[in-house]
Amino acid sequence: MPEETSAPLPRLAEYPIDHEFIERWSPRALTGQDIPQEDLMALFEAARWAPSNGNSQPWRFLYARRTQPAWPLFRDLLDEGNHRWADKASALIVVVSAQKNEKTGKPLETASYDTGAAWMSLALQGHLKGLAVHGMAGFDHEKARRDLRVPDGHRVEAMAAVGYPDSPDVLPEDLRKRERPKERHRLDQFVFQGGWPEHC
Amino acid sequence: MPEETSAPLPRLAEYPIDHEFIERWSPRALTGQDIPQEDLMALFEAARWAPSNGNSQPWRFLYARRTQPAWPLFRDLLDEGNHRWADKASALIVVVSAQKNEKTGKPLETASYDTGAAWMSLALQGHLKGLAVHGMAGFDHEKARRDLRVPDGHRVEAMAAVGYPDSPDVLPEDLRKRERPKERHRLDQFVFQGGWPEHC
Repeated sequence: MPEETSAPLPRLAEYPIDHEFIERWSPRALTGQDIPQEDLMALFEAARWAPSNGNSQPWRFLYARRTQPAWPLFRDLLDEGNHRWADKASALIVVVSAQKNEKTGKPLETASYDTGAAWMSLALQGHLKGLAVHGMAGFDHEKARRDLRVPDGHRVEAMAAVGYPDSPDVLPEDLRKRERPKERHRLDQFVFQGGWPEHC
Repeated sequence: MPEETSAPLPRLAEYPIDHEFIERWSPRALTGQDIPQEDLMALFEAARWAPSNGNSQPWRFLYARRTQPAWPLFRDLLDEGNHRWADKASALIVVVSAQKNEKTGKPLETASYDTGAAWMSLALQGHLKGLAVHGMAGFDHEKARRDLRVPDGHRVEAMAAVGYPDSPDVLPEDLRKRERPKERHRLDQFVFQGGWPEHC
């Protein structure tokens, strides 16, 4: 029943927002075609303009397109579960944050938070360009640090697969059934007026 | 010379992106008017749909509008430097992340990163609605934790001021001179093909 199981849930916004926020999701069904270098760079360009504490810009992006020599290096970082679909990505990205100010050596307390902001811009820009962008925590962080020469004082935050959307039919059955936008908590479960609710 | 000093730098993108990413910035000149509840909620609505590891949605938002009883509680968290302009915000937000899975108790390694993603959606949505949204690290994190009853296992990430843009002339002179979009690193300073550059 791929037609039924792959039908997107109707996500409903409680308040009116721009379409990209609610339409963006994290598909797994990818075509495996190459991505032009300039199309990939536009995603990093969007990330570039994110805000950060003192304009510290702690985000770093390591990447390989599937046609580049480093592709196997990036692909081999993935957990088995992600191999099953992300091997068809057009590019794989490792997101890293600089945890110290490079000039003063002082800790950047908001490095991960600010890097997450840059990642969101990347994901939204990808969606706006018709690409599938899917963040991943399921990979070998230590191997990434070692094989990609991530320096001390930097944190490996996450990976992301970037690709062209394909039919859910290309996926193994269990993934095909999950190939739809996920729901979210209600606003009153994470937005609190005046402070944390007394009963929590 | 407010005309000269407040003129926005021409930000230039190296690759074509959607306008909101490069046009969004962090103004300080605010009118001090109230914001309708539904307009503020739309910012949290945009944040709601951010991606997170296993759809854990670790972001929490505490807020007060300037007309609400909790306003002084939030305003008093700010450092002196931020008081000088953020007292004219329409709403103040404290962004918190849940650092553990609430059901299993297991650490959420990407909690700060994922919460930063939600924050970026909030900031972009604010910009798209014509609001000024300005993130802040300069506040008393411990006082925020205590006064807003943030539970153990949660991290106070940052604050944000939301308001209506005003003329830079309302700012003290030193802030007026800085009232413009900031530049960013070049892409080749934070985007690395194949792994970290050998010379870094």
